[in-house]
Amino acid sequence: MSPFNIQVWSQAHLRAVEQALQNWVTPQAPAQLGEAMRYAVLDGGKRLRPLLVLASMEACNPHPAAWTLDAAMRAACAMELIHAYSLVHDDMPCMDNDVLRRGKPTVHVQFGEAQALLAGDALQTLAFELLTPEQSDVPAAVQARLCGLLARAAGHAGMAGGQAIDLVSVGRRLNADELRQMHRCKTGALLEASVVMGAVAAQADDVTVQHLLRYGQALGVAFQVVDDILDVTADVAALGKTVGKDAANDKPTYVSLLGLAGARDEASRLAEQAQHALRESGLKNTSPLEAVANWVLQRQN
Amino acid sequence: MSPFNIQVWSQAHLRAVEQALQNWVTPQAPAQLGEAMRYAVLDGGKRLRPLLVLASMEACNPHPAAWTLDAAMRAACAMELIHAYSLVHDDMPCMDNDVLRRGKPTVHVQFGEAQALLAGDALQTLAFELLTPEQSDVPAAVQARLCGLLARAAGHAGMAGGQAIDLVSVGRRLNADELRQMHRCKTGALLEASVVMGAVAAQADDVTVQHLLRYGQALGVAFQVVDDILDVTADVAALGKTVGKDAANDKPTYVSLLGLAGARDEASRLAEQAQHALRESGLKNTSPLEAVANWVLQRQN
Repeated sequence: MSPFNIQVWSQAHLRAVEQALQNWVTPQAPAQLGEAMRYAVLDGGKRLRPLLVLASMEACNPHPAAWTLDAAMRAACAMELIHAYSLVHDDMPCMDNDVLRRGKPTVHVQFGEAQALLAGDALQTLAFELLTPEQSDVPAAVQARLCGLLARAAGHAGMAGGQAIDLVSVGRRLNADELRQMHRCKTGALLEASVVMGAVAAQADDVTVQHLLRYGQALGVAFQVVDDILDVTADVAALGKTVGKDAANDKPTYVSLLGLAGARDEASRLAEQAQHALRESGLKNTSPLEAVANWVLQRQN
Repeated sequence: MSPFNIQVWSQAHLRAVEQALQNWVTPQAPAQLGEAMRYAVLDGGKRLRPLLVLASMEACNPHPAAWTLDAAMRAACAMELIHAYSLVHDDMPCMDNDVLRRGKPTVHVQFGEAQALLAGDALQTLAFELLTPEQSDVPAAVQARLCGLLARAAGHAGMAGGQAIDLVSVGRRLNADELRQMHRCKTGALLEASVVMGAVAAQADDVTVQHLLRYGQALGVAFQVVDDILDVTADVAALGKTVGKDAANDKPTYVSLLGLAGARDEASRLAEQAQHALRESGLKNTSPLEAVANWVLQRQN
């Protein structure tokens, strides 16, 4: 077997994810809605969550059956749709009022607020549609569990809850625990669920799922810390979105809390935690998950 | 057995639905989000969709097991959450810009637009969470099928798709087929799915589901025709929301297309179609479904 190459692995998996999204994101939706949904999802984004789902599935089952591959790809794309819907709504004037995303005008700038609202709503619904195919070999128990995991990660106790805490925290001074709790919901819940859903698609046992959950938890916080660092250090061309927004909006961040050097130390510590959880899992095929953790730490956008 | 009394039936079932919504709508969500979600759902609404789910389940299975009752109540509440989320988003300034709903200020008036956006999003997610309980005797196959039905009814090919058609149709003259297609998605899809989900919770056979689907289709269109009639004939106190909005917005309606008398004839014809489908089903315990059809035709709000 040739040594693992993350470039090759990522390129192949990204191509498969893009193809699946192209097929699944609603060629048949009513004209403007379909256009807005595709605009929000296709040709952009790092696809971190889909790659996490697929890497986790492969770690748990290096030789997956066809239905396992199908379930994992559905989970990967469903996760990306939830992420995409949250960005569409987050960018709207009543939330962050952002005009630039992935180097393009945001959805509401391009299609109007009403279509952006609807497109976000329909992207969320489509995620659950993808997880419950009408004709499929994916066992019903796996379908139901994936739906439940996605709903719990995206809803009031996960992403949406984190955003609500974020809304009421503007202008307040959060301590480290409060900040971590907010981000654990807002960003971490989806990253954690990506890893767990990959494991569930592979029908991993509960102990393995727990190890992967710890990997996902550390990775999720690390991701947010790096995000906060990039918000003050990156330039707009590299990031593809408006920079310095958090500071301008007086939002609490890891950088405002720990300073830039402190935030960098925190990110490294969390990345090491993630790698440690992988070693503890006893899984053999963890190179892709290790590579994702490294990438999260070193990314420039 | 005493003769069927729709008042008694409705009151008992409404009480059960309200209690379930009280329990399930997120006492544990972050402060303002939970408040906005509860405000949008509790103490208001006709609960037509939940009653349809329960009536359909009882028609298919007059002596349901405990898990069937649980599955049906979860489906009933999930359906109401989808309906509630759509109202919250629909009322927002970028959509219908409505300030009054069920006799109360709309969610964005009460909590601000950002919280209304988030609360709508989280209500949609919660619907899928309710359908996939972590500890439950509801078979995984029923959970997965209910999720799939709800997603297809609420998404781009159902409710959200109908709203998108509605958005682009303002100021255009739709013909009867186009108008019916729009409403079949926008309002009809959820009403149809309510009936089908009740049948699925009761594990009805496919032929029975088809008959109930036809009942649901006719009822769904009838509901919208009556809605259009009430928009021009009811007063604001009876309706609990702004009246005459559709005409003011130059939106196509059954009344603008068929005239008031024509719309009333159409509603009666559709109600008869719904009753016909019930008779054809051969089901015995259809009194609640018949009563709901009558109520839809005769309602004053």
